[in-house]
Amino acid sequence: MSNPTAAMLVIGDEILSGRTRDANMHYLAGEMTKMGIDLKEVRVVSDDRDAIIRAVNDLRSGYDSVFTSGGIGPTHDDITADCVAAAFGVHIDVRDDASALLAAFYEQTGRELNEARLRMARIPDGATLIDNPVSVAPGFKLENVYVMAGVPSVFQAMLASITPTLTGGAPLLTQSIRIERGEGDIAAPLGKLADEFSDLSFGSYPFQHNGVHGANIVIRGTDGARVEAAAIRVAGLFDE
Amino acid sequence: MSNPTAAMLVIGDEILSGRTRDANMHYLAGEMTKMGIDLKEVRVVSDDRDAIIRAVNDLRSGYDSVFTSGGIGPTHDDITADCVAAAFGVHIDVRDDASALLAAFYEQTGRELNEARLRMARIPDGATLIDNPVSVAPGFKLENVYVMAGVPSVFQAMLASITPTLTGGAPLLTQSIRIERGEGDIAAPLGKLADEFSDLSFGSYPFQHNGVHGANIVIRGTDGARVEAAAIRVAGLFDE
Repeated sequence: MSNPTAAMLVIGDEILSGRTRDANMHYLAGEMTKMGIDLKEVRVVSDDRDAIIRAVNDLRSGYDSVFTSGGIGPTHDDITADCVAAAFGVHIDVRDDASALLAAFYEQTGRELNEARLRMARIPDGATLIDNPVSVAPGFKLENVYVMAGVPSVFQAMLASITPTLTGGAPLLTQSIRIERGEGDIAAPLGKLADEFSDLSFGSYPFQHNGVHGANIVIRGTDGARVEAAAIRVAGLFDE
Repeated sequence: MSNPTAAMLVIGDEILSGRTRDANMHYLAGEMTKMGIDLKEVRVVSDDRDAIIRAVNDLRSGYDSVFTSGGIGPTHDDITADCVAAAFGVHIDVRDDASALLAAFYEQTGRELNEARLRMARIPDGATLIDNPVSVAPGFKLENVYVMAGVPSVFQAMLASITPTLTGGAPLLTQSIRIERGEGDIAAPLGKLADEFSDLSFGSYPFQHNGVHGANIVIRGTDGARVEAAAIRVAGLFDE
């Protein structure tokens, strides 16, 4: 049985302008691998209504789960919740359960729950809230789409609160073998091994460090014994 | 006149498995912004033939230029060149100009130009080579698609060799104002300014540091005087 699949949608002008280096993609990728969910595609789009709606619809029909990051704060450029509602064709407004969370938090911290902050309680009809232990304003899940914050600490906390509810697969096991030969010398025997172990994936990642060049050969698969057997064969390729 | 648009396609299992944190997206984003080219979308896909072909075709029809990174080395998982040829429906084989570059390089370094390394001379019909001053194996340009290496030093060198040939637009100018107020307090007056300066883009990026919380307001536009005028207004929002 093959593993569940996932895609990610990163939303934000700041990533595409080079102002901010995205951190959530790499984090999500690592978590999905641990859970045995195959992250198959990531898209990054700007704070543009049409682009977000199109990407949400493309990805939710193509993969088992979609995780979004960014665009759910209180400012005018935070349009993700409204775009997700539009993508599903459902109504969106301030919802009582979300606004109650915010009201309690702002009362406690002595700040005003003004109209801008209430935007963070806009939740599409039919969605369930995703807990935000960092800054309270919730994310939400609508069918197979999980809408989360862009701030890395909040994204990670939200992901931690949903992972127990996700159905994982067989976790991907990895072995990495460092070979101090040019990739071009490794390629032919490695390609033969990849054919022989067709249930595994073989990656070759060249390095050059202090005048030594070579490649890290990474073997990935869900069957530990097979990964181990392949790693022994790779390690033995250039032993005399 | 609006700026030229661009998209990026990052190819590689190692990014989606979380093994490697991509660096090329952030680098390209910064370079595009300097040149006045609007990077509108990034996609990351695995070393999967169908996924690569579909993404190349989607992006090349949607944007003025497409930049790819990854999958052009000598090993069996390097399939980008063949997929780009398939996306355009053109023939691909080892090409004399590319193999001559490799032959000279390997002769000089005393290594063998074997069959695996010759894979790096597979260039689609009609493409022009992109210079690789780091490790010689070339990238290529086919119509509006620029195919480059995934290793960051090589990606950056290839990009440097093509940027003089790209048509830029008005570079995006940026001003950043740090405001030590909650984003929710800033949101309403900022939204009004964003409406008033509708030719500019306003981003709000919250921070929390040593107990101080607030937001960096980033104003972007191509007209320096307008960006400056808006920055003064933002900075004055909470002066009494």
